[in-house]
Amino acid sequence: MNNDNLAVLGEFGIISRIAAVTRTGVGVVTGIGDDAAVTDLTPGMQLLTSTDMLLEDVHFRRCWHDPYRLGRKSLAASISDIAAMGGIPRWSLLSLAIPADTPLEFLDEFTCGYLAMAREHGVALIGGDTCSSKHGLAISVTIMGEQTPESILRRSGARPGDEIWVTGTLGDAAMGLKLLEEDIFSLSTGECQGGCDVGNINGSGTFTPPPAPSRQGRGNEYLISRLLDPTPRTAAGIALAESGQVSAMIDISDGILADFGHIAEMSGLGGTISLSEMPLSRQFRAATASFPAFPHHLVLAGGEDYELCFTASPDSHEKIIAIMKKCGVEAVPVGIVTSSPEVVVLDAEGQQFHLSHQGFNHFAS
Amino acid sequence: MNNDNLAVLGEFGIISRIAAVTRTGVGVVTGIGDDAAVTDLTPGMQLLTSTDMLLEDVHFRRCWHDPYRLGRKSLAASISDIAAMGGIPRWSLLSLAIPADTPLEFLDEFTCGYLAMAREHGVALIGGDTCSSKHGLAISVTIMGEQTPESILRRSGARPGDEIWVTGTLGDAAMGLKLLEEDIFSLSTGECQGGCDVGNINGSGTFTPPPAPSRQGRGNEYLISRLLDPTPRTAAGIALAESGQVSAMIDISDGILADFGHIAEMSGLGGTISLSEMPLSRQFRAATASFPAFPHHLVLAGGEDYELCFTASPDSHEKIIAIMKKCGVEAVPVGIVTSSPEVVVLDAEGQQFHLSHQGFNHFAS
Repeated sequence: MNNDNLAVLGEFGIISRIAAVTRTGVGVVTGIGDDAAVTDLTPGMQLLTSTDMLLEDVHFRRCWHDPYRLGRKSLAASISDIAAMGGIPRWSLLSLAIPADTPLEFLDEFTCGYLAMAREHGVALIGGDTCSSKHGLAISVTIMGEQTPESILRRSGARPGDEIWVTGTLGDAAMGLKLLEEDIFSLSTGECQGGCDVGNINGSGTFTPPPAPSRQGRGNEYLISRLLDPTPRTAAGIALAESGQVSAMIDISDGILADFGHIAEMSGLGGTISLSEMPLSRQFRAATASFPAFPHHLVLAGGEDYELCFTASPDSHEKIIAIMKKCGVEAVPVGIVTSSPEVVVLDAEGQQFHLSHQGFNHFAS
Repeated sequence: MNNDNLAVLGEFGIISRIAAVTRTGVGVVTGIGDDAAVTDLTPGMQLLTSTDMLLEDVHFRRCWHDPYRLGRKSLAASISDIAAMGGIPRWSLLSLAIPADTPLEFLDEFTCGYLAMAREHGVALIGGDTCSSKHGLAISVTIMGEQTPESILRRSGARPGDEIWVTGTLGDAAMGLKLLEEDIFSLSTGECQGGCDVGNINGSGTFTPPPAPSRQGRGNEYLISRLLDPTPRTAAGIALAESGQVSAMIDISDGILADFGHIAEMSGLGGTISLSEMPLSRQFRAATASFPAFPHHLVLAGGEDYELCFTASPDSHEKIIAIMKKCGVEAVPVGIVTSSPEVVVLDAEGQQFHLSHQGFNHFAS
C-alpha cells in the first residue's frame, strides 16, 4: 500500500506519471508533453470527434465503480460514440479534476484501466489536463477517430421500411444499477456501503483488477459488470459502416426508445418497435423474477447499454447476419422504420405500449 | 429577465439552444447533433489537439467572472495552446457540468461569450456534452487546430544562444487577481461580495456585455480585464511559425519562469532571463506603487498571461521585429538560451535573483 496522495506528487508529477505508461499509436506525431498533441490523419479519411464528462455522484459512485473499471468505462463511453459513426477510434485526451487527498493508488488504477481499454480498441492517450477539485472527481474524455467519408454513418440516413437492428442485449446495465441501488436502499444509513476493494498493484506494475462489487454469488455479477465495465462495439460498428449495407446508426446510451428516437427525428421519420423482439440476456430474465411486473422500462429506457442501434433495408438482412457473425456480435431486428413521424412500441398482442419514462435526462427534476 | 432555469429546458433543450446559435466553419462536415462531429483537415496539414478544464472556485469565481467573459475565457485558454504551436485554430468541443438551478440567462450569456471568442479566432463549435452538476460549474473545452508539419513549433527546438522572446506584457492578469482578492479580503465576511452584473440580453438576442467588475474608476480595469478576458495570440503564433525563424514556442499560462522552464527542459538546455527586460504595462507599474516591494513574483510566476514565449537565433532578431509589427503585437527579447541546464534570473546588477514561488501548481498545499 502506497499512502502517498496526489498533493505529494503535484500537477506535473501526475502528468509525468501518466505519460510514463502511455504508448504511441497510429498517426501519433507528438503525444503528451507539449501545448497540443500532433497527429496525422490517414489520407482520405475524415476526423470524428466526441467528448463526454463523468461526474462523481452523478455518473458514478466511487463505492460502486472501483478505479480500474472507472478508468475503463470513462474511455468506453467515448469509444462507443466513434463506433456509432462506424469510425476507427484513434486518439484520446483525458482531463481529471481530482481531490488533492486522493490516494496515488486510485490514480494508478484508474490510469491502468483507462489504458487497458485504450489498448483493446487501438486508442492512444495523447494529452489532457489535470487539476485539483474541491468537490469530488470530474472526468472529461475526448475521443478522436477517423473513417472514409463514404463509410461514415449518421443518425439521419434511415429510410421507411428499413429494419431497426440492435446488437447484444438491452437492459442489463440498468438492471445492474437497480441491483446496486437495492443493496443501498436495503440498508438504513443511505450511504454507500462496503467500501471499495481497490485491487492490487504489485511491485512490477502489474495490476490485478478487483472483483465485481456487491451481490457476489447471487448470479447478478454479469448484470453489474455490464454497468461497470461496458464493451463498446468498435469492430461491429466499423464492419457495418464499411459494408455499405447500413443507412443510419447510433449507440444506445439513454435507452433504445430515446436513441432510436434520435435516428427517427434526424431522418424525419418514425418507427414501430416490438416489445417481444427485445434481446434480453438470460441473467436479465432471471433477475426480473423478483419484480412485481416485468420491468420494460429498464429495457426500453434504462440507459448505458452501449450497444448499437442501426437501420438497414430488409434486402440486407442476410448480409447483416453474416457481418455480425464475423464480428462475433449478436444482432436482431426489433422493428421497422415508418414514414409517420412517431416512435410506437407494440406489445406481443400488437397493442401500443406506453412508457412514461423515456430515457435519462440530466436536468430532469 | 428570464427566470427559467436549466431544469426547465432539460439536457436536449440546452444542446438545441446552443446548437441554434452556432455557425459552421472551415472543414466542418457535421457539427452538433450526431454521436461525433465530422471534419475535414486541410490536405497536407497535421491535427493539433488540446483540452482544458475550468472549475468553479478553482479556476474562476462566479462573482468575478461574469458569464459572458467566462465563456470567452474558457475558449481563449484553449486557443492559446494552439497559438503556442503556431497552429490555426479550427474546431472546439464544449462540455458543461452545470447546476440544474442555474438561470437560463447564465447559459445564454456564457454561450454568447464563447461564440464571440470563437468567431474572433475562426473557431467553430462542433460538439460537446451537457450534464447537471451537484457542486458548481465545471467547464471542459477541447480545441483542434491544424498546421503544416514543417511549421508546427514545439517546446523542444531551442538552441544555445537563441534569444528568449516574450509577446505583450507580463504580470497584468496576476495583478488583476491580486486586486480582486484584495477587495474581498478587505471585507470581513470572506465571501464573494457585490454579486455579478450579468449584462443584458435584449429581445433580438443581442447581448451587451457587463462592465468589468470591481474597482471601477481606480485605473485598474485594464489589469482586471487582462485576467477576466485574455487575448490568445493566434495571429502572432501563426506568423511566427510560418516564418521559419522560431526554434521553440510555448504560451505563458503558469508564469514565464515555469513556462520557459518547459522549453528549457524539453530542449535539454537552460537560460538566463533578465529581470530588467520584463515587459510591463503602464497599468502594472502604477499598481505596484501600493506594494511594500516590487512584486517580481507576479511578473515571473503570476500565471494567466496567455502571451507567447519563443526562442529564435539572434540572426533572426530584425525579422522577428518585422513579423510582430505586421501582427500589431509587441515582442521583446528577455534573455538567452544557455547550454547549462538551469534557468537563471538576473537582476539589473547582473546578480542572480531567487524566487521562492515558481508558478502555479494545482496540487500544491
